[in-house]
Amino acid sequence: MTVLQQMGQRAQEAARFLRTVSAKEKNGALLSIAAHLEKSEADILKANGLDIEATKVSGMTSSLLDRLTLTPKRIQDMARSVEEVAALPDPVGKVLGGQTLPNGLRMQKVSVPLGVAGMIYEARPNVTVDAAVLCLKSSNACILRGGKEAIHSASALERVMREALEESGFPDGCIQLVKDTSRESALELMKLNRYLDVLIPRGGAGLIRSVVENATVPVIETGVGNCHVYVDASANLEMACRIVDNAKTSRPSVCNAIENVLVHRDVAEMLLPRMKEALDQHQVQLRGCPETVRILGDCVVPASPEDFDTEFLDYILAVKVVGSLEEAIDHINAHGTRHSECIVTESYENSRRFTLEVDAAAVYVNASTRFTDGGEFGLGAEIGISTQKLHARGPMGLEELTSYKYILEGNGQIR
Amino acid sequence: MTVLQQMGQRAQEAARFLRTVSAKEKNGALLSIAAHLEKSEADILKANGLDIEATKVSGMTSSLLDRLTLTPKRIQDMARSVEEVAALPDPVGKVLGGQTLPNGLRMQKVSVPLGVAGMIYEARPNVTVDAAVLCLKSSNACILRGGKEAIHSASALERVMREALEESGFPDGCIQLVKDTSRESALELMKLNRYLDVLIPRGGAGLIRSVVENATVPVIETGVGNCHVYVDASANLEMACRIVDNAKTSRPSVCNAIENVLVHRDVAEMLLPRMKEALDQHQVQLRGCPETVRILGDCVVPASPEDFDTEFLDYILAVKVVGSLEEAIDHINAHGTRHSECIVTESYENSRRFTLEVDAAAVYVNASTRFTDGGEFGLGAEIGISTQKLHARGPMGLEELTSYKYILEGNGQIR
Repeated sequence: MTVLQQMGQRAQEAARFLRTVSAKEKNGALLSIAAHLEKSEADILKANGLDIEATKVSGMTSSLLDRLTLTPKRIQDMARSVEEVAALPDPVGKVLGGQTLPNGLRMQKVSVPLGVAGMIYEARPNVTVDAAVLCLKSSNACILRGGKEAIHSASALERVMREALEESGFPDGCIQLVKDTSRESALELMKLNRYLDVLIPRGGAGLIRSVVENATVPVIETGVGNCHVYVDASANLEMACRIVDNAKTSRPSVCNAIENVLVHRDVAEMLLPRMKEALDQHQVQLRGCPETVRILGDCVVPASPEDFDTEFLDYILAVKVVGSLEEAIDHINAHGTRHSECIVTESYENSRRFTLEVDAAAVYVNASTRFTDGGEFGLGAEIGISTQKLHARGPMGLEELTSYKYILEGNGQIR
Repeated sequence: MTVLQQMGQRAQEAARFLRTVSAKEKNGALLSIAAHLEKSEADILKANGLDIEATKVSGMTSSLLDRLTLTPKRIQDMARSVEEVAALPDPVGKVLGGQTLPNGLRMQKVSVPLGVAGMIYEARPNVTVDAAVLCLKSSNACILRGGKEAIHSASALERVMREALEESGFPDGCIQLVKDTSRESALELMKLNRYLDVLIPRGGAGLIRSVVENATVPVIETGVGNCHVYVDASANLEMACRIVDNAKTSRPSVCNAIENVLVHRDVAEMLLPRMKEALDQHQVQLRGCPETVRILGDCVVPASPEDFDTEFLDYILAVKVVGSLEEAIDHINAHGTRHSECIVTESYENSRRFTLEVDAAAVYVNASTRFTDGGEFGLGAEIGISTQKLHARGPMGLEELTSYKYILEGNGQIR
């Protein structure tokens, strides 16, 4: 048996335990994890220091370094968010429906854990804790495989969480971290069908693509957001500028930020200069179609075809002038990633058509795409944002980490 | 562009049309399909004759020949079942939930089609019609890829359905059959991520495995059922015999039939001879563990380890004596395929533990596993029985062919 197969077996045993554990016991374990995180602050910071040293040697972008770095404040925030998860309602054991069949069989549809969840992610240490506690709260065992940049931090966090689990009488298979950060270990995890019920990748487009292409375990695709705002001919232009500016510049590095603006030809001459004025305050680089360049002049970089398919995650925005609502919808359905799309319009009929015909997890009328988020949607917590249509779409909370089973109680019924 | 890519593009265009079509229009098209099936009986039978001729040349089992053969009665049954699907409630456009967020954004969660569904199946011609009409009813475009044995029949059925669609003003991309039945075309379909939202295989364990191993499109795994009946120490033995007999012999070729019986040691001596007596009337071959052989004698074939992992789909039953409820649950969770499992017991506590701890789509107390079926569960129709936990579990009806989207209506909200 390989190391991963042994981890899979321990996770299956833990999953069997978790099917029988009460919400009260789970919440006790979660609160113990929160306490241990605070108690072990020094050890965690020490381990995090090793990761930071290593990256300074290997060299790393400041943004990656920022995501990697832990502080006492960030560890306390982690502990608080674990306490918040403990306070959420239990997603398993809900009776979702049921009926008594004509033959007298009493049928119940009940929410149950998925079983064992695999998570593949990158350098954010806090994902190790987020993912583990959301899985625990939904009675799923988890196998975590983070990026090598954060391996010391992740290992320390796993150790702390497992101490808390042991104190609470939970098997150590509930939360396991893959220590081998080689590409081979990732590939083996993607094909661990015998032990994994689901695999959830969290990270950049490259990671997601690799998982989708290589996994034989059922995958929930997350996160890549090539999002658009379409400014309709009937739009309130002041509102359009405000929404475009917020959706692009409030946090360019996240998946619900926009990468493209589509402008109806009838308002392009009036809107584009005002929009540019707002975006200039954040030094946003515009990459425009020929018509945009004609209107705004040389300050606009001519857009390449690729620009309309790129998730910049930066202060860069592709701009295209379109002739109609149809053209806008077709462009979004052809180039979007089914994440979040917005129309700014005062036309009732156009808002109705856009929300019906645009194929995306979240479709907005006159509001920023930045609201696509588990917290904003009131899910209480978020394990990721699904951009596929099976199982879960959009922000995934605790309910999206459950499946269901049918329980049928009879007194000798045969068919 | 390859032929399949072109089909994918037409399917995407059809899917966009289907997002906007009303339930009334869909039902009109479905009734037109039913009428055309009856009108074209002669053509369909003629095409089916070609398939039957071909199989006689190549040689084929009688059971496969039976599945392949169409008759006027079977074509009328097809038409009736299409009319029944037309009469079912529309699964898309349902408001599943929603709220007004603190900032005034009005959020709705609405059921929507999956988009484009790929179906890979074997020699049953009726699956071509079943799958196509269930997809149409749920506003999904479909690309169908059946087995080569039924290619003439499937092509005739596709032609008939498309005539009906054309009359109803529906684009021909709504229903498309892959004419190339080579392994290469199946493999290409499994990786057609750009155009397919889901892939649903229907057929034997070999087909399912090939799809799970090769597909990069999200798959709903269906059908393989290595199902058990566990006879508890407290069981009503007369009821146990009746349930085992029904679950094994009422239709051995289907996935909800049982392949294994687990018997508690305390009742093995009393139960096994009576159970054998009932099963002998259908010449069921028993393959037993050593203890079963000791009790029943040489008439029982000693079971090999593989026998407890085999879906016989035949008059063969593996029998194992176990020492406890725990041993039964562990055996089922280790060897079952998460389909349908049954306990026969008079013990409240054991029924409770079995339904909680056994990991399967349908868990029965004192009833035959044969009830795991869309019709029996009141779903109205069935596209397959899911044995995975993502998206859908157990019998899949029209609702399981939908996803959802969030629609957020605001008046300028920014984050």
